[in-house]
Amino acid sequence: MRMVDLIAKKRDGKELTTEEINFIIDGYTKGDIPDYQVSALAMAIYFQDMNERERADLTMAMVHSGDTIDLSAIQGIKVDKHSTGGVGDTTTLVLAPLVAALDIPVAKMSGRGLGHTGGTIDKLEAIEGFHVEISKDEFVNLVNEHKIAVIGQTGNLTPADKKLYALRDVTATVNSITLIASSIMSKKIAAGSDAIVLDVKTGAGAFMKTAEDAKELAHAMVSIGNKVGRKTMAVISDMSQPLGSAIGNSLEVKEAIDTLRGHGPKDLEELCFALGRQMVYLAGKADSLEEAEEKLKEVIHNGKALEKFKEFIANQGGDSSVVDDPDKLPKAAYIIEVPAKEDGMVAEIVADEIGTAAMLLGAGRATKESEIDLAVGLMLNKKIGDKVKAGESLVTIHANRESVDDVIEKIYANIRIGSHAETPVLIHDIVTE
Amino acid sequence: MRMVDLIAKKRDGKELTTEEINFIIDGYTKGDIPDYQVSALAMAIYFQDMNERERADLTMAMVHSGDTIDLSAIQGIKVDKHSTGGVGDTTTLVLAPLVAALDIPVAKMSGRGLGHTGGTIDKLEAIEGFHVEISKDEFVNLVNEHKIAVIGQTGNLTPADKKLYALRDVTATVNSITLIASSIMSKKIAAGSDAIVLDVKTGAGAFMKTAEDAKELAHAMVSIGNKVGRKTMAVISDMSQPLGSAIGNSLEVKEAIDTLRGHGPKDLEELCFALGRQMVYLAGKADSLEEAEEKLKEVIHNGKALEKFKEFIANQGGDSSVVDDPDKLPKAAYIIEVPAKEDGMVAEIVADEIGTAAMLLGAGRATKESEIDLAVGLMLNKKIGDKVKAGESLVTIHANRESVDDVIEKIYANIRIGSHAETPVLIHDIVTE
Repeated sequence: MRMVDLIAKKRDGKELTTEEINFIIDGYTKGDIPDYQVSALAMAIYFQDMNERERADLTMAMVHSGDTIDLSAIQGIKVDKHSTGGVGDTTTLVLAPLVAALDIPVAKMSGRGLGHTGGTIDKLEAIEGFHVEISKDEFVNLVNEHKIAVIGQTGNLTPADKKLYALRDVTATVNSITLIASSIMSKKIAAGSDAIVLDVKTGAGAFMKTAEDAKELAHAMVSIGNKVGRKTMAVISDMSQPLGSAIGNSLEVKEAIDTLRGHGPKDLEELCFALGRQMVYLAGKADSLEEAEEKLKEVIHNGKALEKFKEFIANQGGDSSVVDDPDKLPKAAYIIEVPAKEDGMVAEIVADEIGTAAMLLGAGRATKESEIDLAVGLMLNKKIGDKVKAGESLVTIHANRESVDDVIEKIYANIRIGSHAETPVLIHDIVTE
Repeated sequence: MRMVDLIAKKRDGKELTTEEINFIIDGYTKGDIPDYQVSALAMAIYFQDMNERERADLTMAMVHSGDTIDLSAIQGIKVDKHSTGGVGDTTTLVLAPLVAALDIPVAKMSGRGLGHTGGTIDKLEAIEGFHVEISKDEFVNLVNEHKIAVIGQTGNLTPADKKLYALRDVTATVNSITLIASSIMSKKIAAGSDAIVLDVKTGAGAFMKTAEDAKELAHAMVSIGNKVGRKTMAVISDMSQPLGSAIGNSLEVKEAIDTLRGHGPKDLEELCFALGRQMVYLAGKADSLEEAEEKLKEVIHNGKALEKFKEFIANQGGDSSVVDDPDKLPKAAYIIEVPAKEDGMVAEIVADEIGTAAMLLGAGRATKESEIDLAVGLMLNKKIGDKVKAGESLVTIHANRESVDDVIEKIYANIRIGSHAETPVLIHDIVTE
């Protein structure tokens, strides 16, 4: 088998066999197939695409390129949740204790990553003492006993995907549904869960700018998951404006606590229920999505979800008293209000630009080397559709520097006040096949 | 300027500017832009193509990536001829002395290359003493005085093309009209001629299998040439069956001598006139193609073309007496006839397979390291449309090994005898813009 013939085959729109796809990924991982052949293939895939069978094969070839996590020592159906990434997305912090409170095992491997704010681990580290440096045995034991634990990235998972992703980034081949879907799904599958709920974001703050593209990506990922024996569902959710009110690490932990108490922002709560009921259903803890949602509401109302969050924090060395006293979370030195300049209705909040404003404060990493300031961030006091009067605060800035003119300028440039507004639909679609 | 943005631009079907194309080729030549980005770009070009301006810019960027030959010391309009390659193509050996006999300067840089038989230099070296290792001054002096000289590849011509060609070869991006045309034209332009006549072959023995593809390639090359100030024309000629009768180095030299005497195979003669009249016209030695053809016939009939060939051989150290006594050319030890198995009409002679049969005898190089046997080859005694009786010789094998069963088998498999035949048109088209 020669790589050049396989590139030509895909270039001509033909289907690659399982054996051929394994040959490519195996050879690339080992360094037998050079970058310049794989980048040409990636561009051919960009134009000619792959069918569902090829996508599943590509995903599994990347899964088998490295270590996989064996969660078989954990009892029950392990359900993982993955978001394609947005601004102010606090769902993981809410959902993990929420479903664990229903005895669904949450064995979460999480990362730090780049972005407007930190990753799930960064956010959790806003709680004093909390750490994810636990052994694999400890991780398994915690999940079996308490149904919830978070561990940092471990082992050499999907090295082929890492290599391919870095190559795509510099060869203008990132933007292929096939390559995005197989990249995400390979990581999720290698991480060992039995079922996967995907939150595919769409809008200005998301990678997929249109609902159509998001739906195509969701379908691709659900198809891969189901083809390789992982029950997979996807929710397509709005990211034209940031989710919830908080954008920043401490601020989002506080928002998660509020939501677990039943007092969270309406959109965050709605999305958590949309994702959570799928997780409960896939975990076999409810016979219908309606029943699943009722159960979720129950553990919020009876306080079990909040208790589970405390238990989780304490298990991993954190100070669980922050749940009752969120003032113990890191606090910024300067609190600055950004008042509306006119009366009207909030018509637009450009999610990615507002996220960048938070990053300017230090809430997220611009490069791998950047340090995160856990205390800083933004609180949105108004969302799209809200009425506002001149002088009323649109956004509260939490900063550790006195002059924030750059941030204020960015906020004004990206929140538009008009005479009317079209409130975006939060849940665009549910994709099950 | 970032290469990844330029790949994305071409991927999205947009036009690259002159500056952008120069940035790419310059960076690639210097090694600042890696292979893996250029292969992704080449695949994007395969799908999205380039317009005529971009093609001309790409060609000139490759010309400027290395040395160029300055032929300004040679008086007159220098006309070069280039063939896209076929089987048994003896036109260069005929045309060079033929047009030189009309005082048109032929300053030919030639190579050895891979293929069914050797390159022009290999063929000429079948003449004892002939050599192309001459200095550049000697080359220029010879052309000024005698209107004809051949020199081996000299200088670092179009290094970007060499690098890009090698990369395309292993990334399934050879087959792009834009990339083929700019590769060929960059070499021709760097070699310094004022005008270029292209012989674009089509059919089984050619790179372009259909007349449509050949026409597209011809148009692309003619457009590039004319855009960058080189008068360029193309002839699209048949290569479904081998050209002429001889396939082999000595055999083709003898065939060239026959043709210069006016006794060559009809198809070879016809193609030489088709190409030659364009060369004479572009060189400004005739006001019409008809007048040009008359002049060519005249120097064949009055013996001047043959005299020019002798002069040329002698000038470069060769034994010119072979022209009057071709038996002095290297001869094979075994002459084996391949008789027809049935009565009928020759319906098909698959050019590339018959060429491969000649290579099996040692007439051409399979790899760069292979040695050529100048004596061996094939003589076609019948061409498509010829009547044949069982037992009559189809092909004469000139071999330096006793057993040639493999060659005979290949010949029988690729010469089809039927009840009727469709004689292929030799000249499909003339492309002038």
